[in-house]
Amino acid sequence: MRIERRGLLLVLSSPSGAGKTTITRRLVERDPELDMSVSVTTRPRREEEVEGRDYFFIDRRRFDEMIARGELLEHASVFEHGYGTPRRPIELALAAGHDVVGDLDWQGTLQLTETVRDDLVSIFVLPPSLTALEARLRTRAQDSAAVVAARMAKSAEEISHWPEYDYVIVNHDIEDSVAQVQAIVTAERLRRERQVGLPDFVNRLRAG
Amino acid sequence: MRIERRGLLLVLSSPSGAGKTTITRRLVERDPELDMSVSVTTRPRREEEVEGRDYFFIDRRRFDEMIARGELLEHASVFEHGYGTPRRPIELALAAGHDVVGDLDWQGTLQLTETVRDDLVSIFVLPPSLTALEARLRTRAQDSAAVVAARMAKSAEEISHWPEYDYVIVNHDIEDSVAQVQAIVTAERLRRERQVGLPDFVNRLRAG
Repeated sequence: MRIERRGLLLVLSSPSGAGKTTITRRLVERDPELDMSVSVTTRPRREEEVEGRDYFFIDRRRFDEMIARGELLEHASVFEHGYGTPRRPIELALAAGHDVVGDLDWQGTLQLTETVRDDLVSIFVLPPSLTALEARLRTRAQDSAAVVAARMAKSAEEISHWPEYDYVIVNHDIEDSVAQVQAIVTAERLRRERQVGLPDFVNRLRAG
Repeated sequence: MRIERRGLLLVLSSPSGAGKTTITRRLVERDPELDMSVSVTTRPRREEEVEGRDYFFIDRRRFDEMIARGELLEHASVFEHGYGTPRRPIELALAAGHDVVGDLDWQGTLQLTETVRDDLVSIFVLPPSLTALEARLRTRAQDSAAVVAARMAKSAEEISHWPEYDYVIVNHDIEDSVAQVQAIVTAERLRRERQVGLPDFVNRLRAG
């Protein structure tokens, strides 16, 4: 017999290039009880992007309205475009015992600690070294030295926020990291307070 | 590079016959970083028992002295014999980044929440049904119906304390349960506050 449980909201943060996106994608592929969080954004849709899969594309007026009504669990503006995590689909998933995962920066995660603390499980992914990270940022973007330097400065700032997370992993090997995050998810699902069906289960147990 | 961590004290509780001893034994066999906690007791040594492996056998005067000096993390008396968990070997193991596991009843666990709260990870193991439990208690002890009834009453009391634990698992299948407990141990080792070497690691990372 299955014990009813409340879902959890898993958040991974890391400096860009440290692997959080790959880890998240593999987790979602392998775990049928875990869905990717879909953000809203005011930036224009790119050709390859699909509405409702990559983002929900909305205009600025609607974005501001969602903020004003408390319909976003966290939000930020990057290069004049707004991004946010809509509250309702996540609330529905968690109440149905389904888990949701997203990758956010430290500022988004900090907002979640205030809006959904009890449901939040936060993991910071550290790179094993900064050299590897810088090399990856260089290859990835055909950008000027100044842009790479700016990205590295942003990475350093992001890394400085590891003490605000529940768990910290070092991504030496992507498969080891996926296994570690999966163990964290398994454990967090077994937390007493998430298993909301336990009082019922124990009552039936004691009744015979 | 390995990040220094503080060990954790894992405690499993369950009504007797629900499987905590088997789970604990298999965990310790498979996980080289996890040792069984060895209790002190004032009861006489049985022939097959080994000093320092099964128990540390001490007299009542020493037992009372250990209590008075705060040398026991928890203690209880059962049928006029004293049992307790010595503080020093556990403190040494945890400080060295080694984990310790023990099985205790709810009263022992409650004492640990006061003496070692930050290091404690507590798991309650529920049986899938009471029928199975009762059958096992009957076969195990060639005891009178009255004794079995008394044990079942004690089981019911023990079960009522599940809400005091960090995690709750239902022991449908012993191997599934071992895997679940192992995932909890893996996750708890990755908790930020247990990885006491993280500030050093991040400093070296940022220094290049």
